[in-house]
Order: sequence, then C-alpha cells, then structure tokens
Amino acid sequence: MNIGIVGGGQLARMLALAGLPLGMRFHFVDPNPACCAAPLGSLTVADYDDEQALGALAERCDVCTFDFENVPAQAMEKLSALGTVRPTPRALLISQDRLEEKNFFSGAGFSLPAYQAVDSLEDLRRAAEQVGLPAVLKTRRLGYDGKGQRVLRDVSDLEPAFEALGSMPLILEAFVAFRREVSLLAVRDAEGHVRFWPWAENVHQQGILFTSRSGPFTASRREVHVRGLVRQVLDGLEYVGVAAFEFFDTGEQWLLNEMAPRVHNSGHWTIEGAVTSQFENHLRAITGLPLGDTRAVGYSLMRNWVGELPDRDACLALPGLHWHDYDKTARPGRKLGHATLVAEDLETLAATAFQLEQQLRGKGFQV
Amino acid sequence: MNIGIVGGGQLARMLALAGLPLGMRFHFVDPNPACCAAPLGSLTVADYDDEQALGALAERCDVCTFDFENVPAQAMEKLSALGTVRPTPRALLISQDRLEEKNFFSGAGFSLPAYQAVDSLEDLRRAAEQVGLPAVLKTRRLGYDGKGQRVLRDVSDLEPAFEALGSMPLILEAFVAFRREVSLLAVRDAEGHVRFWPWAENVHQQGILFTSRSGPFTASRREVHVRGLVRQVLDGLEYVGVAAFEFFDTGEQWLLNEMAPRVHNSGHWTIEGAVTSQFENHLRAITGLPLGDTRAVGYSLMRNWVGELPDRDACLALPGLHWHDYDKTARPGRKLGHATLVAEDLETLAATAFQLEQQLRGKGFQV
Repeated sequence: MNIGIVGGGQLARMLALAGLPLGMRFHFVDPNPACCAAPLGSLTVADYDDEQALGALAERCDVCTFDFENVPAQAMEKLSALGTVRPTPRALLISQDRLEEKNFFSGAGFSLPAYQAVDSLEDLRRAAEQVGLPAVLKTRRLGYDGKGQRVLRDVSDLEPAFEALGSMPLILEAFVAFRREVSLLAVRDAEGHVRFWPWAENVHQQGILFTSRSGPFTASRREVHVRGLVRQVLDGLEYVGVAAFEFFDTGEQWLLNEMAPRVHNSGHWTIEGAVTSQFENHLRAITGLPLGDTRAVGYSLMRNWVGELPDRDACLALPGLHWHDYDKTARPGRKLGHATLVAEDLETLAATAFQLEQQLRGKGFQV
Repeated sequence: MNIGIVGGGQLARMLALAGLPLGMRFHFVDPNPACCAAPLGSLTVADYDDEQALGALAERCDVCTFDFENVPAQAMEKLSALGTVRPTPRALLISQDRLEEKNFFSGAGFSLPAYQAVDSLEDLRRAAEQVGLPAVLKTRRLGYDGKGQRVLRDVSDLEPAFEALGSMPLILEAFVAFRREVSLLAVRDAEGHVRFWPWAENVHQQGILFTSRSGPFTASRREVHVRGLVRQVLDGLEYVGVAAFEFFDTGEQWLLNEMAPRVHNSGHWTIEGAVTSQFENHLRAITGLPLGDTRAVGYSLMRNWVGELPDRDACLALPGLHWHDYDKTARPGRKLGHATLVAEDLETLAATAFQLEQQLRGKGFQV
C-alpha cells in the first residue's frame, strides 16, 4: 500500500516510521531536498502546490495526506479530484483561517475566547474595546508556533502592532487567563468510529510547544461534553484521520484555541505512552484499517528540543526516556527532536523529569 | 552517526526502524537488491564477503554489525581490521560451528544435552550408543530454522540420515524431553554493563519459531545462576551488543541449545513489550550509548507469520495487537512478519491470543 504525504517534515517522518511495519510505503512531496522524511521513502522535490508533482503522487498512491496545515488547501482540493485525500481539504481550509475557524467552531457549540475580525486600525480600536485588553492580535492565515502574533496590553500598543501585522487580514482575540492548556486528540475512520486519547496538558514557551504530559486519566464531565462536540464536528466534516484540538482550561470551562487537521506535536507522547500512537492511528484511519486502542500505557511527558539538541547520551541514561531526533539541521526556533519519558506512576515520572531538567541545566542547556 | 549492517533482512530492517529516531543512518550490504531493509537506508548489492563492499562500508560507517549468523566470520574479521565491528567476530565464529559452540559453552560451565562429533558412519554408530536414541543429527555449520537436521529414532535411521547429511561435518545431539524452551536475551556494552530482558518461552513448529511469550517475570534461582554464566561468557568474549541464548527447560535444569550473537526472533516481543527493545539496545551498545531499561511493560505474545501473511485488517481489529510486515515476497517457510499482542495481565493476553487463533482458523489460516 502506497501512502502519499504532501510535506516531508518530522510529522511525515514519524508517520513513515509508524507505517513501515504495517507494510506501507511512503512518497513525499516537499520543496526541500534535505527534508527529514526523505530517508524513509521516495521524495519529489517540488512546491506543495506543484500540479505535476501532485498528479504523479495521486497516481502512485492509494491515499494521500498532508503533514502540516499550511499546505495550500486549494492544492489539496485539486489533488482530491485525482485520488483519495484524507482528511478532507475542507478541514484544512477551516483551520487555515483563524476567523473562519472561530466562526465554524463557535457555530458548532464550542466555547471560545472573545474575538473580532480586524481589517483596519479603526476595526482594531473598536475590537479592543469590545474584546478588552490585554488581547492578542494575530494574522488570520499562516501563523504557527507563535509566529504572526502581538500581545496588546495597553491602548498605545494598538498602532505599532497594527503596523507590524496590518498588511494581512487580522483577528483580535481576548487574552485568556487560563489555568492550563490542554489538547484533545481524536481519530475518526471512514465508517465514523471515533476514538480519543486521554487529554494532554501542554506548556508553551515563546509560542512554541515545550512539554506535553498525559496519562491514563478518566475523562471529566467537562471533557465528555467537549468530546461530544468534537465528535459532531468530525462527523459533520466526514473527517478521516487524526485531529488535534487545543483548549484553554480556565478552571470553569475549556475554551477552544485552535484545531489542527493532522497529527500534532501535543500527541507525540502517544508513540511510547499509548497502546497505539497518533501516527499509526492516522494511517489506520486513512487506509481503512481498524482503529487501534488509544489507552495510555503509563504516565508520559514529552519534551521538545527546539533550536538545539541536548546531550543525547546523557539523556538516554535516564530510565524510561525515549529519544526522537528528526535528523534536521539546527536553527534557532526550529523543532529538532523530542524526548518522551514514560513511567508507571506519576511520582516516578516527576522524579525522572526533575532529573532530566537538572541535567539539562547542568549542561548549560536553556530550560 | 552511520551504522553499517552486513545483511539486509528483517533484523536489519527492525534495527534501522529503532535507530532512525536516535539520529542514526543505515547502510546495508546484501546480495539481494530487493532485501527488506533497503527502503530504510543505502544498500550496496554485494556478497557478504565482498572485500570492496565491506571496505567501503567500514570507511563510511562509525560502527558495523551483522544481521544473521551465517555471515562469513572471516569476512567480519577482515572488516574489523578496517573499522569497528560489534559484536566480536569471535562470537560469530563460535556460533557458526555447533561443535565449537558446545565445547565452548560446556567449558564455560553451562549444562548441555549430550553431544558427539560425527565425521563418519562409524562415528555416528558410536555416538548413537553414547548419546542414546532418539537423538538429532545436525550439520555443524550453516543450519538455521531447522534446516540440516534429522531426528534419529531407531538404529535403522542412522544410515539414511548420514547419507542425507554426511557430506558435511556433523554432530549428534541427545533428543531432550524438555518441558519448554526458553530464551534469555542479554545486552552488554563496551564498558561491561550487562542487562537481561525477562526470559521468553518459545514454541517452534517444523523447526521454525512460532510463538514467544514474555512478561514481567522475576528471575528464578535457576535463571539467576544461568544469567551469571551468560555474563561471564559475554565478559570473556568482550562481547558488545545483544546476544540470545536458547535453552531446553527440562524442569530440573536449563540445557543450553544454542547462542545467537545478534538480535533474535525470540526477542521481537521487546519492541512493544519492553521499555527498550532488543533493536534499540543493540544499537545503543554498539555505538557506546547508555543501555536502556529492559523491563517488560506488560505480558506479551509474539506470533510469527511464516510463508503467508494472514488478513492484516482482521488482526489489527484485536486490541493491543501490533503488526510487523517485513515487506518480503511470500515463499513457503519464509518469515514474512510477526504480530505481538501486549496486555496488562495474563488473562487478557490469553483471551486475545485465543481470539486471534480462532480468527486465523476461521480464515483457513494454518495454525
């Protein structure tokens, strides 16, 4: 079975690592000839919207998917006329525009932070009054890992922020005083079966995911409610594959921050921490295989390596630590790999995590 | 870090799948251009003892290893003059000759089934008297998966068996009425640290491994004794990497059957069933990384797929089943893949294993 992936980054790489044992073969389209998925399949070096490359991919593959959400949705729509594309490009389209996304999920019954569309400085002033300050001004499109965002704390911040970002359609979002960020990871197959992994709690640094932790948690009443909404949305979209939903947990409610129509960094812990990983279940879903068990097999903590890899050998000396090097060239702010700690109980996990942080600090690694 | 593997079969493939996340890159030498490790690294199509290919491998790689024990030991010795080869070719040399192997392990204090060298029909008659019947006549070299063996039940079996195998140096081994076959999997690093996975119980069919099961068993006094002997042997050989030791458990003692100086089929359960797999720990050992935790994370049952793959989709519907397709062309007697069931307790494992066998039977699959 041949799987086409538009994008050849670390998500494509980890999809291939999960799919090879299932007997699948992988084909990537990526403009970067040194993209990190390349060693795991065949690579066509081309832009994500290169029609010839996408046509050849559709011809060669039983099913196509994508590994990040800034792949042009229009290109995926064209591709879906030539072959099976999962998940639906419509999900991509929604997630690519923060305003559309918020309108869509608000309409689907989710609670969201207050937001307003901003197309002019005038709009921004009005929005700031309605939403209140502090608030976050964001570009509607092409933002990820905290890029294209400005925090507005005071009225005097409005004009410079608008000037910095104002050439693009914007959105102003209320700044949420959240207790924690959680993400819900779901997978839906073509027959409509939906499974959820246990929620993960995320910590970001400078807009980039820093850690995610999860474990065999039972779903609270609030989570059960949110799962119901997620299920309705996935059903409505006839969504097939893994989707990630990020929330701000204010203590009173879960406010939807964003949705990613793909495997997600906050689900990397599932590789070792769940019976079936997000990568395997995404592949199972898009190829029509039965979904695998999403239960946690212990308590997990995933720690991203951004800009710099720490001393691998020292890290691997920690019991229950699993190492993931994406084989990428180091660059500030670039995700180069991650490690996941898995332990049978929370105490052991906390102790090993403390050891890890001590060790990183001892080596002058920024923590 | 570049790893060279002489041999590009499923063991090399699973080594690469374990090593890619550690940031390693793989290079294989195999005479078969369609060998199943090929998609996971670079492949040089050449015989295992091709001096030019091995020279290039040594030059390109930080460390070399091999993926099966019939790689010519002499070729590995030559390779070790050019670069680091782990484990030591001496272990390969010992394991390649059943007589040398038995003399070596007998000298190291292991209990073994009675055996005698056989170079003539005369020898065979004498050996049959000393060892007793039933007994197994085997070629001293190049046997695997039950190939090159004859069971002798009666004196009249001697001549035809000798004629069938007699052109090669032989060995007669007592037929052991064992209660079960167990294997011990160990890993030793260059600094002399040794770790054992819990023992696995193996079932063979027609000389080929059929199932292995393991779990978080505590070592019995007998196992602790045998572990001590294994440790001495590995230390004596300055062995670096994973080694597998197969025993006949007679209820009274563990009689050594054979040693494999490599990752082993009876250790495939460690991929999902242990904190660190045999593949990852072999790579950690040969590259000087700290060894990973060898504890079991549940109860596991590995089931080989020989000659034919069953219906993957139906198998994957079973909870806790993990699928491994080696991407090989089907051929009778050929190992094409395996599945591992992992469960939290023995009862669940037994129930799922029963479901699996029922399902295979229902599909007319030979069980």
